[in-house]
Amino acid sequence: MPKRKDHLTSDIGWSTADQITVRGLDLPSEILGEMNLGDLAFLLTAHRKPTPEESKVFNAIVITLVEHGITPSAMVARLTYMGAPESLQGAVAAGLNGLGTVFVGSMEGAARMLYEALPAERKGQGADLDAIAREVVADHAARKAIVPGLGHPLHKPVDPRTPRLFEIAAENGLSGDYVALMQAIQREAEAARGKALPINATGAIGAICCEFGFPWQIVRGFGVMARSIGLVGHLLEERSDPMAFELWQRTEEEILRNSGPQAG
Amino acid sequence: MPKRKDHLTSDIGWSTADQITVRGLDLPSEILGEMNLGDLAFLLTAHRKPTPEESKVFNAIVITLVEHGITPSAMVARLTYMGAPESLQGAVAAGLNGLGTVFVGSMEGAARMLYEALPAERKGQGADLDAIAREVVADHAARKAIVPGLGHPLHKPVDPRTPRLFEIAAENGLSGDYVALMQAIQREAEAARGKALPINATGAIGAICCEFGFPWQIVRGFGVMARSIGLVGHLLEERSDPMAFELWQRTEEEILRNSGPQAG
Amino acid sequence: MPKRKDHLTSDIGWSTADQITVRGLDLPSEILGEMNLGDLAFLLTAHRKPTPEESKVFNAIVITLVEHGITPSAMVARLTYMGAPESLQGAVAAGLNGLGTVFVGSMEGAARMLYEALPAERKGQGADLDAIAREVVADHAARKAIVPGLGHPLHKPVDPRTPRLFEIAAENGLSGDYVALMQAIQREAEAARGKALPINATGAIGAICCEFGFPWQIVRGFGVMARSIGLVGHLLEERSDPMAFELWQRTEEEILRNSGPQAG
Amino acid sequence: MPKRKDHLTSDIGWSTADQITVRGLDLPSEILGEMNLGDLAFLLTAHRKPTPEESKVFNAIVITLVEHGITPSAMVARLTYMGAPESLQGAVAAGLNGLGTVFVGSMEGAARMLYEALPAERKGQGADLDAIAREVVADHAARKAIVPGLGHPLHKPVDPRTPRLFEIAAENGLSGDYVALMQAIQREAEAARGKALPINATGAIGAICCEFGFPWQIVRGFGVMARSIGLVGHLLEERSDPMAFELWQRTEEEILRNSGPQAG
Repeated sequence: MPKRKDHLTSDIGWSTADQITVRGLDLPSEILGEMNLGDLAFLLTAHRKPTPEESKVFNAIVITLVEHGITPSAMVARLTYMGAPESLQGAVAAGLNGLGTVFVGSMEGAARMLYEALPAERKGQGADLDAIAREVVADHAARKAIVPGLGHPLHKPVDPRTPRLFEIAAENGLSGDYVALMQAIQREAEAARGKALPINATGAIGAICCEFGFPWQIVRGFGVMARSIGLVGHLLEERSDPMAFELWQRTEEEILRNSGPQAG
Repeated sequence: MPKRKDHLTSDIGWSTADQITVRGLDLPSEILGEMNLGDLAFLLTAHRKPTPEESKVFNAIVITLVEHGITPSAMVARLTYMGAPESLQGAVAAGLNGLGTVFVGSMEGAARMLYEALPAERKGQGADLDAIAREVVADHAARKAIVPGLGHPLHKPVDPRTPRLFEIAAENGLSGDYVALMQAIQREAEAARGKALPINATGAIGAICCEFGFPWQIVRGFGVMARSIGLVGHLLEERSDPMAFELWQRTEEEILRNSGPQAG
Repeated sequence: MPKRKDHLTSDIGWSTADQITVRGLDLPSEILGEMNLGDLAFLLTAHRKPTPEESKVFNAIVITLVEHGITPSAMVARLTYMGAPESLQGAVAAGLNGLGTVFVGSMEGAARMLYEALPAERKGQGADLDAIAREVVADHAARKAIVPGLGHPLHKPVDPRTPRLFEIAAENGLSGDYVALMQAIQREAEAARGKALPINATGAIGAICCEFGFPWQIVRGFGVMARSIGLVGHLLEERSDPMAFELWQRTEEEILRNSGPQAG
Repeated sequence: MPKRKDHLTSDIGWSTADQITVRGLDLPSEILGEMNLGDLAFLLTAHRKPTPEESKVFNAIVITLVEHGITPSAMVARLTYMGAPESLQGAVAAGLNGLGTVFVGSMEGAARMLYEALPAERKGQGADLDAIAREVVADHAARKAIVPGLGHPLHKPVDPRTPRLFEIAAENGLSGDYVALMQAIQREAEAARGKALPINATGAIGAICCEFGFPWQIVRGFGVMARSIGLVGHLLEERSDPMAFELWQRTEEEILRNSGPQAG
């Protein structure tokens, strides 16, 4: 049971007649025109402005999460919009609801695995990453668990986002023990399984989030904010080139054919 | 009734084993590290990369919409998270659902009013903006309708975001007839009503969206994508400094006091 | 701008250590075992217990709204559940978001049309329903508007729910001027259009809601509560006989075929 | 990874021009006028009509879940409706999103605990319920876990819903080993803890769901369908006696006072 409070507080920001402050910065003079949208997301997450290098890397990881084609979330947003075109926000909300354990779990899972294998205070202390990686892979094998962040049904033998994300991280000083550990885990897993297991985008993002020091619980939030941008893009296309009605009609017809009075 | 389709299509993007394309750009090489999050939102809306000037202005207008303190949406997200902390996406979805006509209507309304008063094809043709503004104000007065984009309950006599947004637009070549018309409407409305009616942030954003040429129906989408970033920020704070439980307890106690068996 | 309040109140109910009251009734002794679920929905809407006759009719109209096969809402709930199976509530929430103007509008619209044509205070006063119906149909024709509650893409020449709903209403004393007016409107519309225009279920329900005296704005709420029951049913089936993954894969493959690098 | 399917199927129902079937029953003649809303929910869950006795008990347990006063969900629905009054469905959807592990977890948890302690095939075979209860309580104590379904912050020493639900179950032949085991667990827990631990409504409902034989994973669905009815009731009250604006203003003012420029 949570505790009662006499005073509600929030450090996110405040407004008076002539001032608007977000995380301690004056919105008109210190944010507008000075920061980009990804920087503001960083500010609201890390509670400080990103350095130019951090800005590069953070924008890249959030951008990676924005758009993945016709995902179930995109289908959901489009089908919802067909029924309630007056409520674009409801269609985006519906689409976000599906970003649960199945789709964003592996990004969280990769970050969590890395933090548990190499706690933040041991970062940069010369830990034996290969040995840690062997333990991680053996532990997952013993539990018959999938190693999060490895493998992709489509992108083989390499997920094209991963080398680019790691390159951007390295160019900007955000490639350290966690990226190296993720790569070591990949090598160990490939050796143990005898097949190619590319680090997928969620594995790369999970590792880079650890380089930033973000708690793994926050990582899902990056997916949610990113995807809401992507879903708005899908709804704009649904206005001009709709697919929802056709998806519905085909499904209804097929169900009637297979399960209706004439079936079997 | 919509029409049936033999072929479903989408121009948003596609993926193959080694390529990922978003709106015609190669994600790894042309987007990651090359664009910021606001630029990607522009790409998904306008279907082309923004120029550096457009990037500045577009990032500023979307950023303006991200964070507004303890709004009903923020309260909703926090109260939802208290009951379902395993589902951050559901809490953001709940918060977005409230971004309807009451809160985002005035931004849409300002853009729509400007387009109806000055259709896009008449932009930059030397229209008599003062005369148009008089008609707009008289028309709203006759219908006893509020002029969208003017006035603010807190920010008086000036909404501090508006001059800064107009400045950024002007510095980047995006201040033309629509910004001027919004300002003319303000002058006419103030003269007619005999009181200060600042152009608020939604009025400024509506006008700048018209400068970009965005259809007014799209404008709500910018609010939705922006606010989802802000709501993630609120949920991160709710994890460390919660207010939802206290809000609930106080309300329940007050209702019991005022409407319970001991009341009246 | 709404007004401030010193005292928040609610008449829905209250709880103390040993009592729970809903709309003035003692939950354990006056509701549990005494009422069915539809009766409780009536209590929360009409603020009194239904008579046995009202219970029959009200349960029938809400039941009619529960289940309509593979609707867009059902597809949305199933697709959402695939991504977040830990959050059944989120999948139902997603499905509800699509119950907007397109799908529930005609039920609201029918009730509204009937109230506007025959205000409640003129009910049962011997109004000339045929004359009113002619005006209603002519007015819709002049505005090129569809008469809400008439016609159905599948159920022709009769929507099989309508005669049964009207029969139940008649057997229980809830068939009066509004049901008769809806039927008169059908006759006039069929004569004017020269084709069969069955009163569909939403038209029947709209008319019966007017017999109850429910404000038309409430009618959508019956659809929302009913459909949430239906959506839970779909999610239970999705657990044992899923269709969401297949729907997704087919769509993604088709889009890649039609809009991917090999297209055109 | 789920499997692909050549044929999508659904046993929920189908419609043709003159027939509508739900779970094998003809909607107009076998459901409308013949069943109440709770019976239909049972049909969609259990895939058969309830007996009159089952109807009594099932309606009672779902009704118990409908209305709990000013819960966080009710606050969420009301706050959302203030911003988007055109979208009642979105406000209900927002409210449902909070029905996660914190609020509906204990109902699921009670059913799961009972099934794990007494698998369905051992029901009615004369198991030593006291011995099982001792083990359950000892096991929870060893894990420092709360026993789900026991205790209530307000309803002491008895939750007034529980004896009535058990009475209705007993009168209708649905009180067997699971209800007895829940009661035995209560006695053991009270003895072990040395204080009153009433079986709360979720414990009673969990036990009765086991008597029905419902899988524990389904139980949350009853909460979701019930609460959507309750939330519609709250939104109808919010239309006539709003509290959302006041809740918002108070919170915003308090945050400004405690965390704004004048604070501390």
